[in-house]
Amino acid sequence: MTTPRNAVTGAGSGPGHHMRSEIAEQPAVWERLLREAREPVGEAAKRLTARRPRFVLFVARGTSDHAALYAKYLVEILHSLPAGLVSPSTMTAYGARPDLRDVLMVAVSQSGGSPDLVESMQVARAQGATTVAVTNNPGSPLAQSAEIHLDVLAGPERAVAATKSYTAQLLVLYLLFDAMRGGTGAAAAALPDAGRVLLAREQEVADIAQRYRFAQRLVCTGHGYSYPTASEAALKLMETSYISAQAFSGADLMHGPLAMVDPQVPVLAVVAEGVGGQAMRPVVRRLRESRADVCCIGSPAAVADATAGVSLPSGVPEEVSPMLEILPCQQLALHLAVTRGGDPDSPRGLKKVTETL
Amino acid sequence: MTTPRNAVTGAGSGPGHHMRSEIAEQPAVWERLLREAREPVGEAAKRLTARRPRFVLFVARGTSDHAALYAKYLVEILHSLPAGLVSPSTMTAYGARPDLRDVLMVAVSQSGGSPDLVESMQVARAQGATTVAVTNNPGSPLAQSAEIHLDVLAGPERAVAATKSYTAQLLVLYLLFDAMRGGTGAAAAALPDAGRVLLAREQEVADIAQRYRFAQRLVCTGHGYSYPTASEAALKLMETSYISAQAFSGADLMHGPLAMVDPQVPVLAVVAEGVGGQAMRPVVRRLRESRADVCCIGSPAAVADATAGVSLPSGVPEEVSPMLEILPCQQLALHLAVTRGGDPDSPRGLKKVTETL
Repeated sequence: MTTPRNAVTGAGSGPGHHMRSEIAEQPAVWERLLREAREPVGEAAKRLTARRPRFVLFVARGTSDHAALYAKYLVEILHSLPAGLVSPSTMTAYGARPDLRDVLMVAVSQSGGSPDLVESMQVARAQGATTVAVTNNPGSPLAQSAEIHLDVLAGPERAVAATKSYTAQLLVLYLLFDAMRGGTGAAAAALPDAGRVLLAREQEVADIAQRYRFAQRLVCTGHGYSYPTASEAALKLMETSYISAQAFSGADLMHGPLAMVDPQVPVLAVVAEGVGGQAMRPVVRRLRESRADVCCIGSPAAVADATAGVSLPSGVPEEVSPMLEILPCQQLALHLAVTRGGDPDSPRGLKKVTETL
Repeated sequence: MTTPRNAVTGAGSGPGHHMRSEIAEQPAVWERLLREAREPVGEAAKRLTARRPRFVLFVARGTSDHAALYAKYLVEILHSLPAGLVSPSTMTAYGARPDLRDVLMVAVSQSGGSPDLVESMQVARAQGATTVAVTNNPGSPLAQSAEIHLDVLAGPERAVAATKSYTAQLLVLYLLFDAMRGGTGAAAAALPDAGRVLLAREQEVADIAQRYRFAQRLVCTGHGYSYPTASEAALKLMETSYISAQAFSGADLMHGPLAMVDPQVPVLAVVAEGVGGQAMRPVVRRLRESRADVCCIGSPAAVADATAGVSLPSGVPEEVSPMLEILPCQQLALHLAVTRGGDPDSPRGLKKVTETL
């Protein structure tokens, strides 16, 4: 295959060069976090565990909302605590003042600058919640509004489409909730090397981007821990390629929106090793029976069931797999955007901090 | 405008006739509920209030998940209690056994037949939750798995696309959470008459369907109480018309997916009177500035800002407005499906109860 004229280049300029270099930085960001975040995360975990929260709430928007959704699975599965995603408007626009004693409220935001999240945190703290902010900016209003701040240490993020700050959020949230059950984050130790190996296989993703170059819409699906990956992949594709990408959990997809999947609508299925991936296998088979084109990011066996795909390193514990799963999805968004003539570093109509509502 | 050959007919046959008659039945279903549900709902409210729940969790899928999302706003705003939507897989596939003392867990399902919801309820009950099932079938496994069952009394639903069972769920959930704060459901009394008047304006919706007949995709948006309406409208359009319809809260839309809205992608905006609608007005203006085609279901003033739309009756309290907002959206899904050559009574690839995963 010849390289298309508007392919992503390795040089430090051209459309998407910020996004490309930030995607590539991720293993180094994770290494930094594994080195430097252990102490602050451990201290936070100690303080939070002493409060014995009964319920965990998350508040976030956009990409950070997908990191929050991942953490909701961690809380529900590893801590057996009920958890929820707050609709920020209920505490801001509607003025709700919930009783939040025994509640741990975690805000997640790259910039820490969204006024509605800051206001939600202030209300939550006044209502008795233990508050934690996870941001990429310790000087931000959100970081300062919370009792405890955890820095994701991703460094300045220049591309409007968030990449390295997303996986840094996932990793900090994993380290925090693992520490809160007495863990040492051991499952994450292998991530930087595995991420480097996976990122080096960029050409596989570039070929897949050519396959979907003319797709008008795309469905993303995953189950359990991988559902946030599917949601984030869809958002990344929408932000950068203006493709209409929608995410559904495998179960929800079978419940209704399956009607809109036909051979013209490729499905990006995240099917990692583990419980969530096992539950996805019959979904992929059913999609293939209906002649859908399925691109699988997952275990080699799952990729073999699909039309196309990228296999993930094996032996990675399911609860840290989302950090790896999203890498080829980010690369796909980048390549698809550039090959379709866009610049993912500055998508039309978007800026980095949202202040509306 | 001449009537297209494959328009929806008034007769009791032809594509979409089940969906059409079930849409039309809704005011009568609400009257029945207002008459017959008061007593069981009042008794349930008394028992639930005595338990003094600290948290409320909902579990549901598909259309019923949008009813649950609506109820989450009721709980957060009217009861100032933290609430969350459970990912059923955490208690089923992943085997989580959360501590659910002080938790009210509400399952919502038309059929009451989804095995994963039944299992979630059984686990929740064993883990100490107070359990309520809201279904359209008192003999269903889900109804029997819960401590308290509330029947939505919608009668048999034949169309695969749920309509009357959805607004019946909304109304029962409203009556329940209003009764739990000592209310008598007064805000709902005017709904049946208002619904009849609104449904009678079907021709306005039929004209709008002609406008969007060739749209490939569509974005739905709303804020606060109207966000579940936007989500349900998107699902209805996907299930029946195979149009790629996506829902975003107004705030989330501004945060990223705005990039995919262009003059080729109409936006269905729900902008009712009240706090949520007020917050949507600047979103609609920003969409119009970017030359988007905005179809507004909302207050006359909001419709005047838009390209096209259907005005809602005025003076309806915001917390019961979703029962009305969804009516023109259901009609739009029906007309769009039929005019595009489909049969919304039996969309391809779908059946009424989902049992996967």
